[in-house]
Amino acid sequence: MPFEPSPALRPLLRPTAPVRAPRLARRLGIDLFLATETFQETGSFKFRAGANVALSVPHPAVVTASSGNFGQALAAGCALAGKRAIVVMPATSSRVKVEAVRQQGGEVVFVDTAVQTRASKVAEVVADHPGAYLASAYDDDLVIAGNSTLGEELAALGEPFDVVLAPVGGGGLTSGIATGLARAGHPASLWGAEPQLATAAARALAAGELLACPSEAQTLADGARTLSLGRRNWEILRAALAGIVEVPEEAIAEAVRLLFLSANLKAEPTGALSVGALLVRPEPFRGRRVCCVVSGGNVDPGTYARLLAEGADPEARR
Amino acid sequence: MPFEPSPALRPLLRPTAPVRAPRLARRLGIDLFLATETFQETGSFKFRAGANVALSVPHPAVVTASSGNFGQALAAGCALAGKRAIVVMPATSSRVKVEAVRQQGGEVVFVDTAVQTRASKVAEVVADHPGAYLASAYDDDLVIAGNSTLGEELAALGEPFDVVLAPVGGGGLTSGIATGLARAGHPASLWGAEPQLATAAARALAAGELLACPSEAQTLADGARTLSLGRRNWEILRAALAGIVEVPEEAIAEAVRLLFLSANLKAEPTGALSVGALLVRPEPFRGRRVCCVVSGGNVDPGTYARLLAEGADPEARR
Repeated sequence: MPFEPSPALRPLLRPTAPVRAPRLARRLGIDLFLATETFQETGSFKFRAGANVALSVPHPAVVTASSGNFGQALAAGCALAGKRAIVVMPATSSRVKVEAVRQQGGEVVFVDTAVQTRASKVAEVVADHPGAYLASAYDDDLVIAGNSTLGEELAALGEPFDVVLAPVGGGGLTSGIATGLARAGHPASLWGAEPQLATAAARALAAGELLACPSEAQTLADGARTLSLGRRNWEILRAALAGIVEVPEEAIAEAVRLLFLSANLKAEPTGALSVGALLVRPEPFRGRRVCCVVSGGNVDPGTYARLLAEGADPEARR
Repeated sequence: MPFEPSPALRPLLRPTAPVRAPRLARRLGIDLFLATETFQETGSFKFRAGANVALSVPHPAVVTASSGNFGQALAAGCALAGKRAIVVMPATSSRVKVEAVRQQGGEVVFVDTAVQTRASKVAEVVADHPGAYLASAYDDDLVIAGNSTLGEELAALGEPFDVVLAPVGGGGLTSGIATGLARAGHPASLWGAEPQLATAAARALAAGELLACPSEAQTLADGARTLSLGRRNWEILRAALAGIVEVPEEAIAEAVRLLFLSANLKAEPTGALSVGALLVRPEPFRGRRVCCVVSGGNVDPGTYARLLAEGADPEARR
């Protein structure tokens, strides 16, 4: 069966956590529950993909370029699989992110993006490690297969829902969810939420073909700063996506605050995209039962404190 | 059977959420998992007690004095039971807390504590509502019975543990956990964590009798600002408590930050007391498997942002 994850993967996963959020539902006027990956190993759904890559490839080492959750997840997966993980990160990455990769046993190679592109640095690293597998954070069948476990879990939760709404960056999460829902025979329709500053999925869906954004947008949702959907992801999503909601930066920030205030949930900005989508475009979801995926919780304390303090919502201040 | 909750209670509860926290465990050097009540109805374990009171008493109205989670929980319970909830709150209570009670359908009566004690205001309110039940947030058999459902759930989680470590204020939570564990036949020992500024349980345990603190301490753990354990709680805890850890204010704040950084968990300061206890006195817990109870997550954004920003821990800053 295509996109079947490694049999060794499922026992390593923490089940996605369903969180009923009646105050949030009332506030948004939407019948919803949250499925949160913030308590997954390494704090985001990316562990599903990173561990599946590490468990599936025969190579003794895996190389990736990531400044965020995928590097950490791949390092954790490689540690479990007894492999080396080599993560190319911008030299300007925050110490917290670098340490997160290293704490999982990953090796960090810095690239000074002022003098060299990430792609050229990755090519160098791969040339230096001829036995290594080069992993994309999204455009890889093994990534889709790993993330498909989330779709399966959603289908098996026993919660009624007609729609799954999830963040979109390169499309690894949504293509995985679509694959898992299909494998489980669940008929829910799938919607994506992406930053209005980085509309790779909306452009592709509108044009009917892959279109790249002109440049990497500095959206708060740093897990969705992708120039384009992945090719393999698009092959699935072109049929599977019922729609895309574009979420402005202020709604992303507001969604982080709403999850804090109304659901006691710490989410990273990328993870809050799906709630942000319900804030700005609730219409397609009215009268339906929505499974709202919160994809991760890794946000540095300074950014999070600033988002809370900047709340335009009066409830966000004493 | 004593302390048996209303049969109508269990279907209303959200199950306590077990959260594996390997990074936190490594950092503390303790084999632990978290059992978090932050996703309970109204955001804290208090819903178990408030709803049980509301479901159990024949009275058409329930009065309580609370500036925090119990008022909100009682209001939600009364709404479900079709009763009035009247909550006496200090006139200086933050708007967020007042609104939380009102959003659950509770009626708020303010007391100006500069001119009248809470107790005298409560007596007035009870005199005005002769058919009302007066509920304590902890010193009430119905509260203990409601909270005993958490002890039962911990026993049924299927996670191995030898110790339960939980916050202590008036003793409602720990006496309930002890009752539930005993009913389930679980042999875990029970430890309490209380603020060093408000050591009602440690004093009682040391003296072998109930002793009141001289005055209400302004600890960050505002759910544990009690002058004394409840009499009914002490009757259970004098035999059930294996020990108490006194947690300094800085360790409470640090525990809130550690839960944010290492477990992606938003906890209120009172809820973080148990992790704070492991920070300042890990010795009794080494080599044991600890179920660490996080009792609630309701903290206002301003306080939380300040706690994150003030992190003495360098990881708490970019």
